[in-house]
Amino acid sequence: MDIIVLKPGTKRDQISRIEKKLKKFGLGTNVIIKGTERTIIGVKGDTSHILPEQEDSFRVMEGVEEVMRILKPFKLASREVKQSGTVITVKGRKIGGKKLCVMAGPCSIEGPQIFMDIAEQVKKAGANFLRGGAFKPRTSPYSFQGMGEEGLKILYEAGKKTGLPVVTEVMDPRDLEVITEYADILQIGTRNMQNFRLLLEVGLSRKPVLLKRGLSATIKEWLMAAEYIMSNGNSKVILCERGIRTFETATRNTLDLSAIPVLKKQTHLPVIVDPSHGVGHLEFVAPMARAAVAAGADGLMIEVHSKPEEAFSDGEQSQTPEQFRKMMKELKPVARAVGRDI
Amino acid sequence: MDIIVLKPGTKRDQISRIEKKLKKFGLGTNVIIKGTERTIIGVKGDTSHILPEQEDSFRVMEGVEEVMRILKPFKLASREVKQSGTVITVKGRKIGGKKLCVMAGPCSIEGPQIFMDIAEQVKKAGANFLRGGAFKPRTSPYSFQGMGEEGLKILYEAGKKTGLPVVTEVMDPRDLEVITEYADILQIGTRNMQNFRLLLEVGLSRKPVLLKRGLSATIKEWLMAAEYIMSNGNSKVILCERGIRTFETATRNTLDLSAIPVLKKQTHLPVIVDPSHGVGHLEFVAPMARAAVAAGADGLMIEVHSKPEEAFSDGEQSQTPEQFRKMMKELKPVARAVGRDI
Amino acid sequence: MDIIVLKPGTKRDQISRIEKKLKKFGLGTNVIIKGTERTIIGVKGDTSHILPEQEDSFRVMEGVEEVMRILKPFKLASREVKQSGTVITVKGRKIGGKKLCVMAGPCSIEGPQIFMDIAEQVKKAGANFLRGGAFKPRTSPYSFQGMGEEGLKILYEAGKKTGLPVVTEVMDPRDLEVITEYADILQIGTRNMQNFRLLLEVGLSRKPVLLKRGLSATIKEWLMAAEYIMSNGNSKVILCERGIRTFETATRNTLDLSAIPVLKKQTHLPVIVDPSHGVGHLEFVAPMARAAVAAGADGLMIEVHSKPEEAFSDGEQSQTPEQFRKMMKELKPVARAVGRDI
Amino acid sequence: MDIIVLKPGTKRDQISRIEKKLKKFGLGTNVIIKGTERTIIGVKGDTSHILPEQEDSFRVMEGVEEVMRILKPFKLASREVKQSGTVITVKGRKIGGKKLCVMAGPCSIEGPQIFMDIAEQVKKAGANFLRGGAFKPRTSPYSFQGMGEEGLKILYEAGKKTGLPVVTEVMDPRDLEVITEYADILQIGTRNMQNFRLLLEVGLSRKPVLLKRGLSATIKEWLMAAEYIMSNGNSKVILCERGIRTFETATRNTLDLSAIPVLKKQTHLPVIVDPSHGVGHLEFVAPMARAAVAAGADGLMIEVHSKPEEAFSDGEQSQTPEQFRKMMKELKPVARAVGRDI
Repeated sequence: MDIIVLKPGTKRDQISRIEKKLKKFGLGTNVIIKGTERTIIGVKGDTSHILPEQEDSFRVMEGVEEVMRILKPFKLASREVKQSGTVITVKGRKIGGKKLCVMAGPCSIEGPQIFMDIAEQVKKAGANFLRGGAFKPRTSPYSFQGMGEEGLKILYEAGKKTGLPVVTEVMDPRDLEVITEYADILQIGTRNMQNFRLLLEVGLSRKPVLLKRGLSATIKEWLMAAEYIMSNGNSKVILCERGIRTFETATRNTLDLSAIPVLKKQTHLPVIVDPSHGVGHLEFVAPMARAAVAAGADGLMIEVHSKPEEAFSDGEQSQTPEQFRKMMKELKPVARAVGRDI
Repeated sequence: MDIIVLKPGTKRDQISRIEKKLKKFGLGTNVIIKGTERTIIGVKGDTSHILPEQEDSFRVMEGVEEVMRILKPFKLASREVKQSGTVITVKGRKIGGKKLCVMAGPCSIEGPQIFMDIAEQVKKAGANFLRGGAFKPRTSPYSFQGMGEEGLKILYEAGKKTGLPVVTEVMDPRDLEVITEYADILQIGTRNMQNFRLLLEVGLSRKPVLLKRGLSATIKEWLMAAEYIMSNGNSKVILCERGIRTFETATRNTLDLSAIPVLKKQTHLPVIVDPSHGVGHLEFVAPMARAAVAAGADGLMIEVHSKPEEAFSDGEQSQTPEQFRKMMKELKPVARAVGRDI
Repeated sequence: MDIIVLKPGTKRDQISRIEKKLKKFGLGTNVIIKGTERTIIGVKGDTSHILPEQEDSFRVMEGVEEVMRILKPFKLASREVKQSGTVITVKGRKIGGKKLCVMAGPCSIEGPQIFMDIAEQVKKAGANFLRGGAFKPRTSPYSFQGMGEEGLKILYEAGKKTGLPVVTEVMDPRDLEVITEYADILQIGTRNMQNFRLLLEVGLSRKPVLLKRGLSATIKEWLMAAEYIMSNGNSKVILCERGIRTFETATRNTLDLSAIPVLKKQTHLPVIVDPSHGVGHLEFVAPMARAAVAAGADGLMIEVHSKPEEAFSDGEQSQTPEQFRKMMKELKPVARAVGRDI
Repeated sequence: MDIIVLKPGTKRDQISRIEKKLKKFGLGTNVIIKGTERTIIGVKGDTSHILPEQEDSFRVMEGVEEVMRILKPFKLASREVKQSGTVITVKGRKIGGKKLCVMAGPCSIEGPQIFMDIAEQVKKAGANFLRGGAFKPRTSPYSFQGMGEEGLKILYEAGKKTGLPVVTEVMDPRDLEVITEYADILQIGTRNMQNFRLLLEVGLSRKPVLLKRGLSATIKEWLMAAEYIMSNGNSKVILCERGIRTFETATRNTLDLSAIPVLKKQTHLPVIVDPSHGVGHLEFVAPMARAAVAAGADGLMIEVHSKPEEAFSDGEQSQTPEQFRKMMKELKPVARAVGRDI
């Protein structure tokens, strides 16, 4: 809140009231510019502590047409506050470094045998993190909702055997304790990006948080969600682009790869991409994974299932381990072309 | 899942595999239509129990191009299952009847005196429900997050004094017990429309649930969220349109009033409209409230604050009690014009 | 372009270069505000003649972070320039007055007999303008493209017989001459809202122009399109909201009724609504027509066809004359409720 | 139109009427499936000639709930009709081959000296086509609208001197003749993608057509626009993705790179990408160019201006020749990584 634009014909006493209110917030008037058509108040002082609702309270004052803010509303997540890119290390594996992180595995954990089988295959193909859902957000109440704690144990075992750190989704603050026991990275899903109580809770955790972008979240709102986590003490946030909702129906969502360079400019946090959810059709996953790496992503999250035809969820967009291996091979030269390893 | 469209050149044994799989689900092949360019399998049997992920598992089979479903994925919420409109009665006040319900009050509860003051004024002006937030979802972690239980008590007292049923938002399953003690209607906010664990919990409650539409939720997804609540035993769901996210920036969101007649066709649940959040600017609230009533809404939810300039949140879109009174007066003839009372 | 925000650490000579460039445009520096985190230049002088591309040329200068403009980019269309609402009179019928205008008729003109039949029925039911397409924009090259000049003659005859002014669409500057001979109002369709050469041509005409909103046009872009017409000398522009493209698929488009109060604030031009294209399904047209009137629209455009089953286009959203009559009857009390006649 | 779904309780005589109507179109009933909740008619015969409006005419019949079409509405543009990718040769340069095409140049042609200067520099850096606008679509009527024929001559001369084929935009059918004299490729801009009369005219031309995607066009609509051109005899259509309109404001548009693999599956036409308009900010152009190539694009269109600060349009997103050279160098290994040359 740095500039207050007044309506044409604003009176002197209205301006006085605005100035009085500014004073209440420890601010002053730097200058009043009387233009040919508008009068503008330049605000003096540090306005960074002014909250959005306080800004709004100026907006509704008589005589005020617009209130403009120049500074970004997020701080801890901002590149200005911390210039160097954040690298997060989990069990010796880095996210945000030269080597890309690749998190692979099935959408849902469906059983110990099949999960271990997939885990070993994706590891062999080059994945350095393991993903799998134990608590699943499902559009229909009649769908499979995940194996719960039993699934977490399977995930933990697979992580131990393969040596790969494991990622799984938290949907409810009440599950956080048990998930923290088993998982290395806590995932916040797209539907919970603005579940602020959950953000606060994972902010109090010491585990890294993978924060997926909300289906219709602007980049600014996404960074504000990261700020929620960071302002509670947890600075290990990984941003994951997974497609936004648009009018196009040829793909499940529209994968917004331009978010990568935008984020790289605005924040120091690492950015990865989930092309599986982004496009929703198996055959488009590999080209978009290549594009994500070329655009500068720090890693990928890929759905892999050994029998997509029998998957309990998201079979349509899952690669087989064989397809995953092929994609990883094709990604190598692309990564090298942009100065990265995979 | 009623029709399976095959790719050109699908082989006999691929069709056999599909038929075998159908049999596993207790389904058969009604007919195979060999067209000039495509072959189509018409599925025989009740497919209504086939889950989306099971449908997907057909989609990824070799030779399959598309799987089409004719029936809607929601049942309990559907107008086909229950033809007559649902009327929900709360402390003698009806939602879904001839008389429109009007829920008014401030965005946040800020203190006992100011809240009671607003409560009495909106009641006098014709509101028949009281709204006020005690737990607030805020985009910035640095913003006012609500008064919590203290706010609930203030809400409860105001409800008792005015005799109006009270509505407040639940953001976290852990708050449900305390909120249930004080509130008459549980509100699920736009950011939690797909917080499925929360939906499940309010589904176990006996209190009516006001379900706001998600910022980028299709009407179908919205009804699936209602289905979540209903499938857990609570059929008292009120749908609240509050604007969707589009490219237009002149208004805070785009209020989708056509959702009213669409919902009236697809579901028996009552539908109300929140123009305050829908447009985000005070001066557009009243015309959109009139439009909502004319389009057939069963009620309105309106933000009212006696001093919008000092509101802790959403001041920009709040009416003063005086403006609310004026709007209510203007709404009377509009309601009558479409056969309703207010 | 009234405020220039500089990047942190901008040097003195970069500021000098900006000031030199301002001088070239006849502008000065009103003030330089050095804040704790940003330096801001307040621009002195009348910036209203600065074009968007000139603004951009400041944006790319070294040291510049953002350039903000306070004034709206349209002038002739703006409510500030002309406070009273514009009323357009065509053959004695007013658009923008107390009485609502209702333009009704089929999507395409299909033949003299059927068109005259519809014309007479809609007139009897209360329509005061006649619509019908002779040149049709069709998504498929294989669809019926309109009757061309023959259709215009039919339209003209029907206008003469019923005494109603007639509206038809112009798609190509080369058709303008012949259409001007027959039509009373020139319609610019949604796909041509930014066909700037066509806007320029109808700007040179003396006939009123009905300017439909582009499928994904912001209100600002829409008013800039009106400005194109007006800046060429034709101030008789009627704005027509007809739905915008969003993610929702339950309706053909999302009818943005909040555009009505927004436009009423920003411009003096009359605003009408086309619910037929907005929703795309017959049964939702009437409730949205009522909502449009309640929101303050100056009129409606409605598709009517005596045999929707045999219509050459848009049959799915057309009312029969009987349904139109019923809707008009229901609209009467709604119009009266908001101080209008129909 | 291959499947007709009936409403519950549809009567025998309603079905008869549907069958009679099918017969009128030379179609029959393959089968009537009476399900537990719905009855479905499987249509017999070649329905590919049934137009959308004819399909609609079934949709509005009594008893009909839905009409489903299985085949795509475009034919000539479809990959099914022509399996091998189309390669278009212009003055010996190929579009759609192994070597990527790179079209570079300023948004507007501003003068002979500056244009020739840019032309020579982009050629040296590896561009193989030259772009430049002579007729400019501008949002504001007060902006620079292009140099017209004088600009075309400059473009032609630069093409002759450098030996590069030249691309320029056609906005108006009346300009087509003069543009055809000077240009090698005709560009249809985003705002004219559904200017069907213009599509028809360039369809009659023998010059290749670069068809930009409309700001809110689905991929299907885009291919229908290509079909317009092809159905008039011109099969040399190049598709150019340039960003779609979404709610995100951090970039000018949202570049939809997943359109590349989707198009590669659905059509045989070559696909290029314009990241300059797609993102609208200089610093995001190069990463998105890399991503486009990695996703499988056949080429790029890039805005280059030797003095972006003085450009008459789009200065904010233009690269300098030096930045273009750097980007081309970085693109080389990315192109090689996906089996292409640049």
